[in-house]
Amino acid sequence: MTSARLEQQIRFLVEADKLKEVFRQTLCTQSRRAENDAEHSWHLCLLAIVLAEHANVPSLDLGRVLKMLILHDLVEIDAGDTYAYDQARMADQHAREAVAADRIFGLLPAGQGREFRAVWDEFEERRTPESKFAAAVDRFQPILLGCETGGVSWREHGITQDRVLARNAHIAEGCAPLWDYAVRMIQRAVEAGNLGPPPAAPAS
Amino acid sequence: MTSARLEQQIRFLVEADKLKEVFRQTLCTQSRRAENDAEHSWHLCLLAIVLAEHANVPSLDLGRVLKMLILHDLVEIDAGDTYAYDQARMADQHAREAVAADRIFGLLPAGQGREFRAVWDEFEERRTPESKFAAAVDRFQPILLGCETGGVSWREHGITQDRVLARNAHIAEGCAPLWDYAVRMIQRAVEAGNLGPPPAAPAS
Repeated sequence: MTSARLEQQIRFLVEADKLKEVFRQTLCTQSRRAENDAEHSWHLCLLAIVLAEHANVPSLDLGRVLKMLILHDLVEIDAGDTYAYDQARMADQHAREAVAADRIFGLLPAGQGREFRAVWDEFEERRTPESKFAAAVDRFQPILLGCETGGVSWREHGITQDRVLARNAHIAEGCAPLWDYAVRMIQRAVEAGNLGPPPAAPAS
Repeated sequence: MTSARLEQQIRFLVEADKLKEVFRQTLCTQSRRAENDAEHSWHLCLLAIVLAEHANVPSLDLGRVLKMLILHDLVEIDAGDTYAYDQARMADQHAREAVAADRIFGLLPAGQGREFRAVWDEFEERRTPESKFAAAVDRFQPILLGCETGGVSWREHGITQDRVLARNAHIAEGCAPLWDYAVRMIQRAVEAGNLGPPPAAPAS
């Protein structure tokens, strides 16, 4: 019994290895190659344990935050990475990812699959202090790497300051000091020419 | 004050990005490229949350296990990855990594740096139930990927079954069912010709 259950869990862990091949628009700081979802997820976990003291709710269940960050991108094995500024693909992102969640968490023994799915749903819904903080680090980290890599990816996609501010403002709901920091960092990126200024208003 | 502390923590998080460029001997299952330490660390975290129920001590502090797994390889930014079967480099591995730990955890605010260093020391010493379980998943995962990639890396380095068994037997100290599983998996790898059998005893 234990053995069949363990075998099923290990097949899930092998399937999860595919996350190392899902590439994002963010670049790594050293080689400037595209970051993959697996190493991104690790980096978020590190951000969470370093920055937890700054969370809006200081008595967070950090273990639950880490579970969310470890699991949150697994759906992208099927659904692919959706670039944060791709409005067309973002429209049906949650629907695509929910189908993926059914399949991927469904590989686990039933009770464990339901538990993990609930963790993923909590992350997606962003209503608890833990999910708001997890979402904050998930949104902050690409901005940090964007600034550290000279905004190459933003410039390539024609992303402007107003869109970065609008897309990521909910960082403040989980970790207000981190949003203050991000706003200053974004301003410096604009001043350095690494992120486009907002488009000028049309002449009236 | 908060701002200077946050700035110092963020510089640490940028330095940590280098872990994505430290490559291991293990191959990823899909592309068969070398796995890096950052995505390896994420995979271990996933193993930990999936397999915690099988730990020898079932009432583990899983949050502490995850902290160890998130932090345990950061020293390799300076010390490099030490292949588990490279006996020459393993001789001074801990000494090299301890110097790296001084520098890397020293980038953090002092109290936090000491706390993270203590987590790393606990992982290295392998005396607590949490560190024994963390070490078990850290040793099991490369065997799993080795088997899933046809033993390419073992064959390239001439690694034989007896060495894999000797090097990894302490998996049983943290998670006995996982060691039983590994032993069966290793046996199948030998039968499939993906891992060398033990060298024959010299004729007497």
